[in-house]
Amino acid sequence: MQQMLVATARPGITSFALGMPAVELFPTAALASAAERVLSVNPVALQYSPPLQSLKQHVRELMKWRGINCREEQIFLTAGAQQGMSLLSRLLLEPGGSVITEELIYAGFQQVLEPFQPKVLTVSTDAQTGMDVEAVEQYLSSGARPSFIYSITDGHNPLSVRLSPSKRTRLVELAEQYRVPIIEDDAYGFLCYENPLPPLRASSERWVFYVGSFSKILAPALRVGWLVVPEELILPLSVIKESTDIDAAPLSQCIVNAYLDTGQLPAQIDMLRTQYRLRRDTMMRALAENFPDAARWTKPDCGFFIWVELPPAVDVDELFRRAVEDEQVAFIPGHAFSVNNKRSSTPSIRLNFSHPTTARIEEGIPRLARVLKSMMG
Amino acid sequence: MQQMLVATARPGITSFALGMPAVELFPTAALASAAERVLSVNPVALQYSPPLQSLKQHVRELMKWRGINCREEQIFLTAGAQQGMSLLSRLLLEPGGSVITEELIYAGFQQVLEPFQPKVLTVSTDAQTGMDVEAVEQYLSSGARPSFIYSITDGHNPLSVRLSPSKRTRLVELAEQYRVPIIEDDAYGFLCYENPLPPLRASSERWVFYVGSFSKILAPALRVGWLVVPEELILPLSVIKESTDIDAAPLSQCIVNAYLDTGQLPAQIDMLRTQYRLRRDTMMRALAENFPDAARWTKPDCGFFIWVELPPAVDVDELFRRAVEDEQVAFIPGHAFSVNNKRSSTPSIRLNFSHPTTARIEEGIPRLARVLKSMMG
Repeated sequence: MQQMLVATARPGITSFALGMPAVELFPTAALASAAERVLSVNPVALQYSPPLQSLKQHVRELMKWRGINCREEQIFLTAGAQQGMSLLSRLLLEPGGSVITEELIYAGFQQVLEPFQPKVLTVSTDAQTGMDVEAVEQYLSSGARPSFIYSITDGHNPLSVRLSPSKRTRLVELAEQYRVPIIEDDAYGFLCYENPLPPLRASSERWVFYVGSFSKILAPALRVGWLVVPEELILPLSVIKESTDIDAAPLSQCIVNAYLDTGQLPAQIDMLRTQYRLRRDTMMRALAENFPDAARWTKPDCGFFIWVELPPAVDVDELFRRAVEDEQVAFIPGHAFSVNNKRSSTPSIRLNFSHPTTARIEEGIPRLARVLKSMMG
Repeated sequence: MQQMLVATARPGITSFALGMPAVELFPTAALASAAERVLSVNPVALQYSPPLQSLKQHVRELMKWRGINCREEQIFLTAGAQQGMSLLSRLLLEPGGSVITEELIYAGFQQVLEPFQPKVLTVSTDAQTGMDVEAVEQYLSSGARPSFIYSITDGHNPLSVRLSPSKRTRLVELAEQYRVPIIEDDAYGFLCYENPLPPLRASSERWVFYVGSFSKILAPALRVGWLVVPEELILPLSVIKESTDIDAAPLSQCIVNAYLDTGQLPAQIDMLRTQYRLRRDTMMRALAENFPDAARWTKPDCGFFIWVELPPAVDVDELFRRAVEDEQVAFIPGHAFSVNNKRSSTPSIRLNFSHPTTARIEEGIPRLARVLKSMMG
């Protein structure tokens, strides 16, 4: 990711590559005054201290907006969603174990799995309804007992789909029947542009381990996220976290807490939904007007991405090279998200619409379309 | 540690237990204005971004004061020393591998080792000259090939000793001869109260991996530390760090950087040395005046602790219980630091002098002495 950051952060590049939120939409002034309040009132915020109880109370309220009822004793504060997933994997994965994931998933989660070298049982993803839950059932009914199932239920990264209501019900039933936990990665779940659906955790307290984050709804560099897990996992998780970074509430937890005290988060999330919906719609329109008829994409209900499938003849690596060199436009080739480094017969690309402004989107998509059309002859 | 934090943070307890810096000595106002500058000038400080290059430049200058010449390309920024040690251990430890440590070391490092279950080859520590380097040589010359040797060269936690100059030379020679890296934990190295000695890293760029931290010289809740390692380790370390927490420069790196831009750190460190030296001397005096003759301790040149050896008859767990219950005074029993959970024939306790004020030290040590004397009959 760092190398991508460098390559696509060159001045003059219009980047649809990384999944970054928009800097200009951060509540920077409110976070600055939160920091000021924290540091003027309370130098103890700079000291080692146990995880911040008042922040857990705020998270509990936040979870209610997502349709999740939980207790503070089930909330574990993390340094972002990535740390949450890394800690859960360390806790759950046994040597020689297996996991179930979709074929195309968030590359950062693949990095989480990498050191444990589990057997990865993959299932496909339907562009309209999400993860192939029947295939999950086949694995389980054939005797597979994975350490967990990984689900990006809403705002799928990279496939920009959400799991259908009936598949949600079935997936949770399977988890309960076979006693296999689900890690539910909800990094984008608060950014739904149409009717939000309740996450899996809303229907299973015991078998769904929820991963949340302030990175997309406040700001990534705060590095504050959380897990909602059965209470008996809190102590083992804190033992692992202590060994990796001491688990002393960092300053940024206090800053997030002070910001949440102001009650401004609901309005911030509403504003983000409005602005990101506008960017999404702008990109949808630019794609419709400029991309060749043979390309296919669906409208994302949630999240930061549009997934575009291209005609079989297109070499997406060559498209990437030419787009960056000839037109200074960047994206991520779809196969970068493949769990088994497989290339599908359908070349595809992931376009991010949250970071570029609407003006950037309107000038960048036609340029990308130009390269694409030139390659299709 | 969290349970200790809770137990010894009860109101009314005079705690000599944890290794915490003094809140009242934090440069709180300067950090608050650093945070304000960062957030008013630069909302990009809230975004995902690569590790902060300007902070690496500051660390390079800092390292010069410690007698270490290094290049920015050898500096790896971490979320505190604990994360640095955890990442290094994940990088270096092979399944079934071994390490060499002293018998009594920082408990947090034992937590780092725990998930890897290495064979731990221990050596003793001399109260005047530090780690038994001859014993290290015996292991190596008998064919042991540990993944690394762990050294707390200055301000030893918990033994409050520093490694003698001749042992420093010999330990580095052994590392080079046998091609075994040393992890040098220098969390307290900037807080030397007498003539500072150059750390091991000053004499071996190739075989000493240095661990540094802003936790004791600025503030722990910032969670900013660093490693100085051979350049070829930087990429593998960043791959591991990405998988655990994305390795996007957090806000607190920017705040530390803005603070360092002001040039106030040297004066801050001078002030800390003066104040902590005063607390050390106050505790030395209180011990001399109140503790029984049969107790033994040495004067720490560096760090946060005094290590006290008690007569063989004293049960330190009973002493702890009675001290907390009868006199509201806390410390840490020495065996809590034992790598193999061995109890030495010499009961001992670790006393922290950095966190309590001189007034607290002056009233707390006599109370602890009273419990101790009552137990000695």
